[in-house]
Amino acid sequence: MEFEAFTAQELAAYLGDVPDVRALLGDPDDLDVVEVGDGNLNYVYFVTNAKAPGRSVVVKQAPPFLRLVGKTWPLSCQRMEHEVAALRRFGALCPRHVPKVYHADSKRFLVVMQHLASHRILRQGLMDGAMYPRLADHLSTYLAHTLFYGSDLFLAPDIKKHAASAAVNWELCKITEDLVFTFPFEDHPSNVYSPALPQAAIERLRTHEPLRIAAADMKWAFMNHAETLLHGDLHTGSIMVNEDETFVIDPEFAFYGPMGFDVGAVIANLLLAFFSRDWHGRIDGRDPVAYQEWLLEQMVRIWNGFSAQFVELWRDNESRSKRRFIGADAESRALTAYRAHFMRRLLADTLGFAGCKMIRRIVGMAKVAEITRIPDAQVRANIEVRCLRCAEALLVERATLGDIEQVATLAREIQRDIATM
Amino acid sequence: MEFEAFTAQELAAYLGDVPDVRALLGDPDDLDVVEVGDGNLNYVYFVTNAKAPGRSVVVKQAPPFLRLVGKTWPLSCQRMEHEVAALRRFGALCPRHVPKVYHADSKRFLVVMQHLASHRILRQGLMDGAMYPRLADHLSTYLAHTLFYGSDLFLAPDIKKHAASAAVNWELCKITEDLVFTFPFEDHPSNVYSPALPQAAIERLRTHEPLRIAAADMKWAFMNHAETLLHGDLHTGSIMVNEDETFVIDPEFAFYGPMGFDVGAVIANLLLAFFSRDWHGRIDGRDPVAYQEWLLEQMVRIWNGFSAQFVELWRDNESRSKRRFIGADAESRALTAYRAHFMRRLLADTLGFAGCKMIRRIVGMAKVAEITRIPDAQVRANIEVRCLRCAEALLVERATLGDIEQVATLAREIQRDIATM
Repeated sequence: MEFEAFTAQELAAYLGDVPDVRALLGDPDDLDVVEVGDGNLNYVYFVTNAKAPGRSVVVKQAPPFLRLVGKTWPLSCQRMEHEVAALRRFGALCPRHVPKVYHADSKRFLVVMQHLASHRILRQGLMDGAMYPRLADHLSTYLAHTLFYGSDLFLAPDIKKHAASAAVNWELCKITEDLVFTFPFEDHPSNVYSPALPQAAIERLRTHEPLRIAAADMKWAFMNHAETLLHGDLHTGSIMVNEDETFVIDPEFAFYGPMGFDVGAVIANLLLAFFSRDWHGRIDGRDPVAYQEWLLEQMVRIWNGFSAQFVELWRDNESRSKRRFIGADAESRALTAYRAHFMRRLLADTLGFAGCKMIRRIVGMAKVAEITRIPDAQVRANIEVRCLRCAEALLVERATLGDIEQVATLAREIQRDIATM
Repeated sequence: MEFEAFTAQELAAYLGDVPDVRALLGDPDDLDVVEVGDGNLNYVYFVTNAKAPGRSVVVKQAPPFLRLVGKTWPLSCQRMEHEVAALRRFGALCPRHVPKVYHADSKRFLVVMQHLASHRILRQGLMDGAMYPRLADHLSTYLAHTLFYGSDLFLAPDIKKHAASAAVNWELCKITEDLVFTFPFEDHPSNVYSPALPQAAIERLRTHEPLRIAAADMKWAFMNHAETLLHGDLHTGSIMVNEDETFVIDPEFAFYGPMGFDVGAVIANLLLAFFSRDWHGRIDGRDPVAYQEWLLEQMVRIWNGFSAQFVELWRDNESRSKRRFIGADAESRALTAYRAHFMRRLLADTLGFAGCKMIRRIVGMAKVAEITRIPDAQVRANIEVRCLRCAEALLVERATLGDIEQVATLAREIQRDIATM
């Protein structure tokens, strides 16, 4: 079937034919349809009953091409099936933090889901200096539940292996393999360097051996370590928040991969927000430090909260099921020691992935608004250099940075040290 | 279809109906059929033309149960499909070291393949003190080719990911997860301890934290690191040899797993042969040292030969394809450094897996003949304790044992040190 984007009227009529959605939205003739997609990939619509604005949904549709470019850049619509499957799975595990799916149509490659009308994108909130008191608790809960329940620590081996096969998502994984783990370290035409970024900083990404080796290790882990069902693109633009609630959206990159990749994405984006605060926080002569400290505190609370909840889920499940991953242990000393060891290894992975994610946001084609929005080229470049220095340290020292507090200390030191590389 | 093992006549008639096999074997009326399977799982037949004994094949058939126990222990016949797929794949990559498949029947769960009439099982040869001058070259070639060509270093990401899904073999993987990585470290009813094995050595497997943690790390890697298509059970009973040729047989445990698992199996079994030589080599008052040194030399040559060929395949492929796993590197210094780093990491994995494999052969239910054949309980226990000490060192020190020569030195030191734990 040739793909045609819906007109407003067609979409309203389509939704009127789906009983569950019609029950939610009311009469198709009353529906306002607004196309709001600003991403590169998909069409996104807000559909609202004009007579009862509380009755609304989001419709997301994946065309069989890269929307930004058009039909000349084909992209499999299968990505919508991955997104729907992941939304349902994560929603079952963590219903408070995942939008509800009302309807999915695998022939039309669309999903109808909960409209988060009173929430905003976390990245925007952080740029404005907003504080979300429940954010760290919510994200650590989301991460602990989604990462634990997809893994061999919970699932029976046959279920886990078939889940991993069903989640193969090579087309979107290939985008990450290229744009996160490969191109940023090359002299690649897709890279975009800001005007004042020193050549030495760019050269260092290409030539510093420990950094190249660490990045390649993370790429190998990304491609091979099928540990759990990941969101796969968990930056602060995939998180919607308000004072009371936190939702994780857009899991179209979902696949079975290394746990640290999702946690690392969150940490990377908090660190990008931290360093870019040196501009955002100074507007009107203010002092950025208080909000920067709040950002680091969130990073620390997210890791520590995630880690504590993950171990708690693990312990509970093993004491209920009487099966222990490492095997029986009469004294439970080895059991406890292994869990601590596992979390240290996971922190190292997390920091390595965070480093790669930060680097791609500085020199790769996909940027983050908190940095591109900085108008002064030199201020921007100084911030970018700090991000790169932090990213390099995370990658190269990932196994020796023993806890998340040390990462916060590292970030503060790099922030204080105004000398650039 | 209810499974019934073939009678000799039925099998001859069946083979006569397969044109390719009939062309090979000749008239069904001339065929001698001998059931020779001594394994726990399958039926194995030698089928030979009585008038022309050079015309012969092996037939292997997987009943839908554990043959050793019978229909009360069901086991999926799918394992034969995994074995056939792996034989074909490995045969294409390494035709000199994999028996030819003449015919496979997925309804009857059988395969007809090359009869290695002048070869013997390597484990038997090593017990007799035979030396195979080409063994190390052949095994390093087999390992380098099979492990490299299934990995992301060669395959396109979509092909690799679909190959990994197609190779899911959870039922046989579960056997390994339990028998190699879990039960040996527990007080498990399936374990079998030799009469004089000191209780302290058994306790140490259960309580020594660094050992338990290392074994759990290897289990996690086995279950999660889908690096390449493995043989999955590459001990010296899966290798057939003569002076000139080496064949790897029985890949029914094949799945996408960590490369070090196959290399580690070879090394573990050479080390078991090395330590057990202290009895086999002393029969009739002889000195075991010369043959023990030959065994260590094979271990060193297999690792070093494998490593050199693997890196060579990697380099050749990247220079032909112009695509480099770590990304472009103008100076190729990082490229070379990463390859060395990759092989050090692979050696660490290899030694960790070798350690687990050695331990399961000492205390688990599946033993090796070179040790069970030792009649003197105290001599046997001394050898077993050395095997366990070596295995523990391989596991716990796997990341610091920097090259295979250090492993040989370690083995010699443990052999010399007659004091037990």
